[in-house]
Amino acid sequence: MKYIDLTHSFIDSMPAFPGDPQASLRAVANIKDSGYTDHELKSYMHVGTHMDAPLHMIADGKKMDEWPIEQFFGPGVVLDVRGKQRIDAPVLDGVAIERGSILFLYTGYGSLYQKKAYFDNQPTVSEDFAKRVVELGVKILGMDILGPDQPPFPTHKMLLGNGVLIIENLVNLEQLLDIPKFDVIALPMKLRADAAPVRVVAVVR
Amino acid sequence: MKYIDLTHSFIDSMPAFPGDPQASLRAVANIKDSGYTDHELKSYMHVGTHMDAPLHMIADGKKMDEWPIEQFFGPGVVLDVRGKQRIDAPVLDGVAIERGSILFLYTGYGSLYQKKAYFDNQPTVSEDFAKRVVELGVKILGMDILGPDQPPFPTHKMLLGNGVLIIENLVNLEQLLDIPKFDVIALPMKLRADAAPVRVVAVVR
Repeated sequence: MKYIDLTHSFIDSMPAFPGDPQASLRAVANIKDSGYTDHELKSYMHVGTHMDAPLHMIADGKKMDEWPIEQFFGPGVVLDVRGKQRIDAPVLDGVAIERGSILFLYTGYGSLYQKKAYFDNQPTVSEDFAKRVVELGVKILGMDILGPDQPPFPTHKMLLGNGVLIIENLVNLEQLLDIPKFDVIALPMKLRADAAPVRVVAVVR
Repeated sequence: MKYIDLTHSFIDSMPAFPGDPQASLRAVANIKDSGYTDHELKSYMHVGTHMDAPLHMIADGKKMDEWPIEQFFGPGVVLDVRGKQRIDAPVLDGVAIERGSILFLYTGYGSLYQKKAYFDNQPTVSEDFAKRVVELGVKILGMDILGPDQPPFPTHKMLLGNGVLIIENLVNLEQLLDIPKFDVIALPMKLRADAAPVRVVAVVR
């Protein structure tokens, strides 16, 4: 059994979503003075490797802590979409995807995280692609970019409005390209919120 | 395959560790005004279902994001310790625990969470118990109470100083009592800190 961690470390002064305040993770107690170490985390939700729940874009949509835990386990599929500025439905043609899968888009941006270039010219995932993903019965769509689209967010809404969760800011997806079969476990913090930090692991048996 | 979620929901105004400021989880954007929902989480680390890393008690100890992901997977064992005010080494006598296990202590306090009674007369886990846990090669010790001990924290230090992670404030452990064999997945947020929120799941095959 081999495990591959697809999650960025969450550190102080993470790059936030453009326009959001920067997250902070600061020590509030240390062993010398208090006998133990403690930290305070202060962050908006769409920072680092995180999962979007329907409430992020859908009025009265489900919150992160309202999903049954089964939703976070499934067979994994990775699509190599490096170099594409627009990720559209035809990239799914001929790809075997069983219902309940967790689908990843590997754009190559993951290795640019923490660099200014991460924010430049990120690809867009089309609404048509999202519609096909919904029809295929995918549970979760994950990607190594900030998000699938820009306001007014048709792709987010197509996915979240149809019960497909979204993972943004993944890393290490290139390690999956040559693996014929793997499972994914993507366990989010059980937050009563529109999104949450998530730990994402590929399991190769 | 059956999955059992052993994690409390993290909500606004969670009960904090006594003496710590209360956590907050507040909406910072809503669909009507911004076109999307977002939240801000502000919390110390030792709130809700969370995992302690060595840095919590050990100077220069490993942080939460420094553990290989394999550490968070293992065969599960649950000990029914209801009614014991002190959990001592002999409760391990005759229990089959393979190396690399994730061991849970079921005290019955989990169902009192969010109530005042949760903070009354919690049991203590002895340093001797922790020493045996270290010798047995347990990876993680989890429990449905605030923590194993009080200052100066000999039990915490025995465990964390020997590479045994700790999970506090678990729930639903009673669901494991009649299951002869289960595995545990305990994936913490990948925080560069002394501890982190964790999602804990038992998997019954």
